[in-house]
Amino acid sequence: MSFPFVKGHGTHNDFVVLPDLDGSLHGALESEVVIALCDRRGGIGADGVLRVMRSGPEVPWFMDYRNADGSVSQMCGNGVRVFARYLAEAGLVDPAKPLEVDTRDGLKQVTFCDDGEISVDMGVPSLGGAGVVSVSSRAFEAVSVDVGNPHLVVTVDSLDQVGELHDSPFFCGVEFPDGVNIEFVERRGGGHVAMRVFERGVGETSSCGTGACAVAAVMAEGDGHAAPLSYTIEVPGGVLTVSLEADQHAHLKGPALLVAEGTWTA
Amino acid sequence: MSFPFVKGHGTHNDFVVLPDLDGSLHGALESEVVIALCDRRGGIGADGVLRVMRSGPEVPWFMDYRNADGSVSQMCGNGVRVFARYLAEAGLVDPAKPLEVDTRDGLKQVTFCDDGEISVDMGVPSLGGAGVVSVSSRAFEAVSVDVGNPHLVVTVDSLDQVGELHDSPFFCGVEFPDGVNIEFVERRGGGHVAMRVFERGVGETSSCGTGACAVAAVMAEGDGHAAPLSYTIEVPGGVLTVSLEADQHAHLKGPALLVAEGTWTA
Repeated sequence: MSFPFVKGHGTHNDFVVLPDLDGSLHGALESEVVIALCDRRGGIGADGVLRVMRSGPEVPWFMDYRNADGSVSQMCGNGVRVFARYLAEAGLVDPAKPLEVDTRDGLKQVTFCDDGEISVDMGVPSLGGAGVVSVSSRAFEAVSVDVGNPHLVVTVDSLDQVGELHDSPFFCGVEFPDGVNIEFVERRGGGHVAMRVFERGVGETSSCGTGACAVAAVMAEGDGHAAPLSYTIEVPGGVLTVSLEADQHAHLKGPALLVAEGTWTA
Repeated sequence: MSFPFVKGHGTHNDFVVLPDLDGSLHGALESEVVIALCDRRGGIGADGVLRVMRSGPEVPWFMDYRNADGSVSQMCGNGVRVFARYLAEAGLVDPAKPLEVDTRDGLKQVTFCDDGEISVDMGVPSLGGAGVVSVSSRAFEAVSVDVGNPHLVVTVDSLDQVGELHDSPFFCGVEFPDGVNIEFVERRGGGHVAMRVFERGVGETSSCGTGACAVAAVMAEGDGHAAPLSYTIEVPGGVLTVSLEADQHAHLKGPALLVAEGTWTA
């Protein structure tokens, strides 16, 4: 088995992009193939696979997103930004125009920004109940946020006080039958915050687009929702910007880079 | 900056191979470039870089090995096996014949085995003094071994008893001013053992060629040196075989695979 790939990342959330304009990868992309591609030592290595598919005449592009464990996923905020970068660099779309990408979570509006970054409308984050997150026997209050996937946001005085995140933080209060992503966030003045994220099933990661949106929603709640609000969010892998528009939609903006292209052989 | 690469691994010890037959990468391969290439999210991702250089008329190949942190290294047992695989697959050497590869640690004799694996003569491991290794407040007796780089080998009843190796094990007894690699090994009957390795400056890894040789040397000491001895060594990333010949040289044998090729762009 052998096929072409592109490797890219957004704030070090990284992806193997598989162009499949003629649909020939259908059938080949079994979960074990995705796992092999994403294996950081035995394969290319990535957080997930972005299969680039043609959709229909009105919305020509579909993002078939797979997690590194081979499972199908609905959406990925950094992923769709890297997906858009691929389309533009391959000459398949005009970056001077807005782009619509179809996903399992519905249509996503993508914008190529003047500063070279790429932005995507992530919809409306929905704040929920409170909970308690425990790390190394230390308890932190948390707020739950739904951004299509579940999050618990913990505001801390300093990210240093969180300590090592080798194992999943323990939480109670809100029920998450499928697990939850946990963000720790430190305010750094004005609209500037820094966050660390523990992704369910993965561990601590360099970046999480939906996590950044969840954090922005919690910050906006504290700031009295004087929309439009914009937050600069420092993640371990770079800097994201989340703007909350008057319609409460969160727009996730940041760099999206392609770093390699080639052929993978199993 | 843009250049061609090949990605390969030996028991999941993985490498970016950079063909540089005309020497044009000289000057370009600064340590920050190596770091960027080996970055598992922002680059290709690897444990190290193998630059393929022409040497002289008698020994035509030189392996310029760099660690993922950008530093220059003398040798890498799994690396030289992947280096040889690249030369064979690129049609640059005849796999029916033995191969000599020059390294900063001197000439290495490589053999393409009939079973498809690749073997390299790693020289004579040298047993040294004893020490004590402590993991999570539990102490283990260790034997030091020099295989060109320093190792401490700890024999345990079960690898499970070692626990998590997030942080460097603490050791005392033998002085290692530049740090030490630590192998934990469990005998599984006959010449079959399983090992875990904590590499200095890296953490727990999937495989370590010199570590496997150090383990074989300690096992052979216990087995009364009835050379030639052969040990099947299960590492987290696969299976290696170390044979100790009558001249006490350790021959490291295992799979070496190329999984991708392409172009990297900074």
